[in-house]
Amino acid sequence: MRATVMHGAGDVRLEDVVDPRLMEPTDAILRVIRASICGSDLWPYASMERSEAGQSMGHEAIGIIEDVGPEVRTLKRGDLVVMPFAISDGVCEFCQEGLQTECIHVAFFGNNGMNGAQAEALRIPYADGTLYKLPVGEDDALMASLLTLADVMGTGHHAAVVAKVGPGKSVAVVGDGAVGLCGVIAAKRLGAEQIIIMGRHRARCAVAEEFGATNVVSERGEEAVDRVKELTGGHGAHSVLECVGLNQSTETAISIARPGGAIGWVGVPQHAMMPGSQTAFFGNITIGGGPAPVRAYIEELLPDILDGRIEPGKVFDRTVELDRVPDGYRAMADRESIKVMVRP
Amino acid sequence: MRATVMHGAGDVRLEDVVDPRLMEPTDAILRVIRASICGSDLWPYASMERSEAGQSMGHEAIGIIEDVGPEVRTLKRGDLVVMPFAISDGVCEFCQEGLQTECIHVAFFGNNGMNGAQAEALRIPYADGTLYKLPVGEDDALMASLLTLADVMGTGHHAAVVAKVGPGKSVAVVGDGAVGLCGVIAAKRLGAEQIIIMGRHRARCAVAEEFGATNVVSERGEEAVDRVKELTGGHGAHSVLECVGLNQSTETAISIARPGGAIGWVGVPQHAMMPGSQTAFFGNITIGGGPAPVRAYIEELLPDILDGRIEPGKVFDRTVELDRVPDGYRAMADRESIKVMVRP
Repeated sequence: MRATVMHGAGDVRLEDVVDPRLMEPTDAILRVIRASICGSDLWPYASMERSEAGQSMGHEAIGIIEDVGPEVRTLKRGDLVVMPFAISDGVCEFCQEGLQTECIHVAFFGNNGMNGAQAEALRIPYADGTLYKLPVGEDDALMASLLTLADVMGTGHHAAVVAKVGPGKSVAVVGDGAVGLCGVIAAKRLGAEQIIIMGRHRARCAVAEEFGATNVVSERGEEAVDRVKELTGGHGAHSVLECVGLNQSTETAISIARPGGAIGWVGVPQHAMMPGSQTAFFGNITIGGGPAPVRAYIEELLPDILDGRIEPGKVFDRTVELDRVPDGYRAMADRESIKVMVRP
Repeated sequence: MRATVMHGAGDVRLEDVVDPRLMEPTDAILRVIRASICGSDLWPYASMERSEAGQSMGHEAIGIIEDVGPEVRTLKRGDLVVMPFAISDGVCEFCQEGLQTECIHVAFFGNNGMNGAQAEALRIPYADGTLYKLPVGEDDALMASLLTLADVMGTGHHAAVVAKVGPGKSVAVVGDGAVGLCGVIAAKRLGAEQIIIMGRHRARCAVAEEFGATNVVSERGEEAVDRVKELTGGHGAHSVLECVGLNQSTETAISIARPGGAIGWVGVPQHAMMPGSQTAFFGNITIGGGPAPVRAYIEELLPDILDGRIEPGKVFDRTVELDRVPDGYRAMADRESIKVMVRP
C-alpha cells in the first residue's frame, strides 16, 4: 500500500510500504478514508535530520475498520471511526480519568517509528481504547468537521478548558493556525464574552471572526501586548490559548494574560526552557496544557458538530489525494493553506 | 527609631532612621511588636549589590496601630493587626476577587525602597485594605502562629490551593524552609492522604512529620525523583508544592508531578527562564502560583490557629531583639535556624 514518509526537512514522499497487519490481539487495521496534515507535522518538515528509513506521517484520521484482533470487543469490520492522534488503552487509571494522552501505553501516530495515517491504511494498537465509533456513514456531509475531532478541535477545546474559559471571560488566542481557530470555536462554545485572535493572515482572521472572534490583533511583540491590554480594560485577558509553541509566542501569551489568569498551552514547545517565568510568577498566572485528551472530548463535542452548532471543518481549505500530500505540506508551510485534508 | 537596613550581600545593620509619619490620608503608622526574617530575605542577603542608602528590610509583622490618617475607616489607634507582606488597597477588582497581591496599588514591604517591618515602626499605605485586625490581645500565647499569617502560612496554603490539594491526594513538598513546612500543614488541612517532604535537614523534617508529613525523601536529583515515584505508585504526586524558587527545585517539582498533576509555585523564581517545559507539557502538568494573597486567606486560616488545630508558629525556632537581627540573618543563611522571630 502507499504511505507518506518523511526523510528529512522538506522531504516528504509517497512510498510503497508493506500492508499493515494485526500484531497484537487488541489491534485493529484501519482503512483511511480521510486524513490530514497537522501544524505539528511542519516542525519536522522544517528541521528533521536526514533519515534513510524515514518517518511514516499523519496522526489525524477517519477510517473504516478492516480487521480486528481477537480481543477487540467494541469494534467490528465496517465500523466508521475517528482515530485520535494518541494511542490509549482505555483501561488504565489515566484513561479512566479522561486523560488518555497520559495513558500508560500512550504513543503518538506518525511519530517515533509509529505508523502514520497519511496512508491507505494503518495498524491501530489498543483499538477499543483508541478509536471512537461514529454514528454516521462515510459519505456524511460533516466529514470535515468530524475529522477535526481527531486532533485540532479537541486540542483547541483543551486549551480553552485549561485556560478556564467561561461565561463573561475575555480570551486571547495566540496563533491563527487550525488549532487557534478551533480554540476560538471552543472559547465561544464555553461562553467567552470577548475573543481576541492574534494573527496577521487576513483569510485566517476572517475565519476566526466567522467562528466568533470579536477582535483581531495583528501587531506583534510589545505592540501586540499593548493592544490586547487596551482591548481588555488595561489588564489583559482572563484566558490565553497558546497555540504555537515557540518561545516568542509563549512569552507573548504570558504578557497578555491578566493577573490571576490562566494559559492553556497546546502548541508543542520547541524549547526546553520556558521564558517569562518571572512575569508569570508575579502575575499569579497559571500555565497548563499539553497533548489534548481528544478521545475524552469527542463525547462532548460530537453532538455540537452533528447538530451544526459548531463547524470546525471550515479550517480545511484544501483537499488532496495521497500522491499530492507533499504539495500539501508545502502549501501549509508556505501558509498558502490553513489545513489540508487528505483523501487516500 | 531603629530599623534593619541591608547594604549589600551579608551586610545587615541596625540603624537609626527618621520616625515614620503619615503621608497619605489612607496611611496608618504601625508599632511593630513581632516581625520575622523570611527565606526570601536571604536572596538579597546572598547577592545584593552594594548600596549606600540600603534597603529597609522585613515584610511580616504583627503590630499595634499608633496613628491613622483621616480616611482610614476600619482601624483605630490601639488595634492589634497582622501586616501581610503586600500592600493592597482593598477596593480594586483584584482585591475584590481575593487576589490582593495583584492589587493595582500593590507594593511589597521591605522591597524596592518600601520601608520594612524589622523595625520599631513603619508606615502602612492603604491601611484599611492592607492590615487585618486580630481578635486577641498582644500577649496572646498564639502570637507566633498568628505572625505566620503575614506570609509563610498563607504562602504555604496558596501553594496547596494552586496545586489542587484535596482529599485522597498525594502531595510532595519541595523545600524544607518555613514555607515548605507550612505547605505541609496546608496539605494536611486540605485532606491530603500522603504528604512527602523533600529535605535533608533532620530537624526540619522532624517538624514536617509533626505537621503531618507521611514520608521524608532526603535524596536529591534523579534519585529523589525515583524515590517519590516509588512512594506514589510509580507515577508521581498529584500535587507538588514548589517552595524554593531555584531552577533545580523547579525541575525536580516538574519531574515528580504525576501526569495531569499540578504544581503550586511559591518560591520566588531566581531565573528568567523556567526549565522542564517539555516535561511539563507532555505530562499535562499545570504550573501556577506566585505571591500569595495572604490577606485573603487570613479569614480561612485564623479560626484554625485560634482553635489550636494548626500550629504554624512552630516554624520559629529562635527569637531575637532588634539589635540581634543581623545574627538572625546569619543563622538562617547557615541553616542553623528555620525561621527567626524579631521582637523590637
